[in-house]
Amino acid sequence: MSNKKASKVTPYEVSGKIDYDKLVKDFGVRKIDDVALNEIKKYTGDLHFMLRRGIFFAYRDLKWLLDKYSKKEKFFLYTGCGPSGPIHLGHLQTWIFTKWLQDKFDVELWFQFTDDEKFLFKDKSMEEISKWTYENMLDVIALGFDPKKTHFLIDTKHAGLMYPEAIKFAKKITFSTIKAAFGFKDSNNIGSIFYTSMQAVPAVIPSVLAKKNIPCLIPLAIDQDPHFRVARDVYPKLGYYKPAILHGVFLPPLEGVEGKMGSTGQQTAIYTTDTPKEVERKIKKYAFSGGQATIEEHREKGGNPDIDVSFLYLKYLFEEDDAKLAQLEADYKSGKLLTGELKQYLIDKINKFLAKHQKAREKAKKMIDKFVYSKGKKGKGKRK
Amino acid sequence: MSNKKASKVTPYEVSGKIDYDKLVKDFGVRKIDDVALNEIKKYTGDLHFMLRRGIFFAYRDLKWLLDKYSKKEKFFLYTGCGPSGPIHLGHLQTWIFTKWLQDKFDVELWFQFTDDEKFLFKDKSMEEISKWTYENMLDVIALGFDPKKTHFLIDTKHAGLMYPEAIKFAKKITFSTIKAAFGFKDSNNIGSIFYTSMQAVPAVIPSVLAKKNIPCLIPLAIDQDPHFRVARDVYPKLGYYKPAILHGVFLPPLEGVEGKMGSTGQQTAIYTTDTPKEVERKIKKYAFSGGQATIEEHREKGGNPDIDVSFLYLKYLFEEDDAKLAQLEADYKSGKLLTGELKQYLIDKINKFLAKHQKAREKAKKMIDKFVYSKGKKGKGKRK
Repeated sequence: MSNKKASKVTPYEVSGKIDYDKLVKDFGVRKIDDVALNEIKKYTGDLHFMLRRGIFFAYRDLKWLLDKYSKKEKFFLYTGCGPSGPIHLGHLQTWIFTKWLQDKFDVELWFQFTDDEKFLFKDKSMEEISKWTYENMLDVIALGFDPKKTHFLIDTKHAGLMYPEAIKFAKKITFSTIKAAFGFKDSNNIGSIFYTSMQAVPAVIPSVLAKKNIPCLIPLAIDQDPHFRVARDVYPKLGYYKPAILHGVFLPPLEGVEGKMGSTGQQTAIYTTDTPKEVERKIKKYAFSGGQATIEEHREKGGNPDIDVSFLYLKYLFEEDDAKLAQLEADYKSGKLLTGELKQYLIDKINKFLAKHQKAREKAKKMIDKFVYSKGKKGKGKRK
Repeated sequence: MSNKKASKVTPYEVSGKIDYDKLVKDFGVRKIDDVALNEIKKYTGDLHFMLRRGIFFAYRDLKWLLDKYSKKEKFFLYTGCGPSGPIHLGHLQTWIFTKWLQDKFDVELWFQFTDDEKFLFKDKSMEEISKWTYENMLDVIALGFDPKKTHFLIDTKHAGLMYPEAIKFAKKITFSTIKAAFGFKDSNNIGSIFYTSMQAVPAVIPSVLAKKNIPCLIPLAIDQDPHFRVARDVYPKLGYYKPAILHGVFLPPLEGVEGKMGSTGQQTAIYTTDTPKEVERKIKKYAFSGGQATIEEHREKGGNPDIDVSFLYLKYLFEEDDAKLAQLEADYKSGKLLTGELKQYLIDKINKFLAKHQKAREKAKKMIDKFVYSKGKKGKGKRK
């Protein structure tokens, strides 16, 4: 053990400087290499910038999944959202990538809103959580998912469907396992202990409904992997495929490269409902800079894009153009581009994105019924 | 600690010689005294023989409940069944008493089938448990409950209604509490740890549906009390009344007065589907006798009804007539009545009961829909 502050990555705490190579080893996942990228490209034609840039950097069972796909066995996508507050940029990263996967592979998406989880882990009432479920659904819809191919599962609303499956997972998972995976104690509430079974379930719901095995691909931020690591042994025991997973890195918080946006202890995430002024203020005031103390020094020594949060937000989310990104990086390193200029570039990018998103978010209010799963909605395009 | 074999009473193990006075103290319940009996009698006119004979012997919050009732605030009854095998006489005891309560107080009964519990605690598949749920429902219906006032809740089937309420209980119960109440370990599966929340829920479901507080009375065998002891603090925190409880003793197994019928380790319970021959064989072969080794000795010394299982079955379940029971007791004690004669008397009683029950059980097959709760069925008599 070294002296440096230990990092922690569980679904319930992300802190410290994240060593992704160590996570790959500790979690027992595979790093995405050129071979894996080429495998994906065979089906997608091009590669999403999050793949090209290593934002989605690791996987489980991906080759198995693509092999199934090549044999006309279509998979479905499963990802989710824990509704306990407003959506920030950190949430969007996985969902933007998920939408690309849906479009490229032309597959269904099952999107879970873990309102039970948030109720059980946060000091919030169910009423408050339900309000956030509604608000968060608007953000997901606003990203442009195809309602014909997208089904929202809300844990409490769909408990009739999910709980009977969850107990099958729960029966095969001990509290010892949960303790080891999530760091829980005897003082944890018994709902939080059970919860991971509910998160395991959407990966089999389409198979349960279709009464046949359908492969599943889960894009997620890597802190969510322990849920599936715990459940992985169980899927085959219940007669299902193990889900394939694509793991994303964390969008850093504004204040610097440790932890993740929105994790405990930092209050300055950028939310999808922020005004242009708020975005400007937050970036200017809080975005950690890789630049030098003075303009003169910056011109002379240049900045460090690897720790500059504005640059990282462009790399992770807002500058799709590789050539433009490379130019920004070079200019920043050389000192030609000042931190203030880089920040302004990012502010404009974010505000352009949010203007469009906020419009779509308003329109989404009328579309919720098209997304929330109901028996009658089963299958493509059918509505209750 | 004495040397004698320790008794154990939890929902998951009943063993040893039960000291009910000690349970009253350990569980913190009140013993039913003459004052309590007179309180009940004010509303019921007479007292069920199980009350007169101390078969239902303890309570929680009964006086509070009757006070509410006297002010026209009707309660509802809640009891249940863990469907993992055939129904035996031990199960019937609580339900027969519950039916009397329903009739006397003219109240609704919510009857829970804890199929999730049995799945999580037993080495049985959900298919097998579901088969027993169906079979067990027939036995409950056969006892003559009023379908207009009786609602079956099946945990997996009604999870959509129950799980969102269960997590509210679960949030306020730690694993430490569960360990202490049920003797669980870290090796318990996480579904079993969560389960007690599901058993807490039916005591509030009518209040949830009516959107107002309705008092609840739970008749149960005392081994089920720990579920509610754990949840009692939680009910008021969620804005509900604590349920009142009436506690029954255990019908002893055929082999003797330790443990309870149907608990682990004894295989000779009398089932509702037994033929007259089977009943006769089981009683004659296994029913523990309080009599003497030879007829001569019995005539001389007399038998001991307190440990004679046949006598106890008559007292607990099959001889409603107090005078007749007293006669049997006196004759057995004096040696006038032989064990074989007592057994034959019981066999006839049981077989008469079962003949009627088995007919009613056949008819019940067409009545299940009238009992299983559905939204449309809400309120008296309405059917979907």
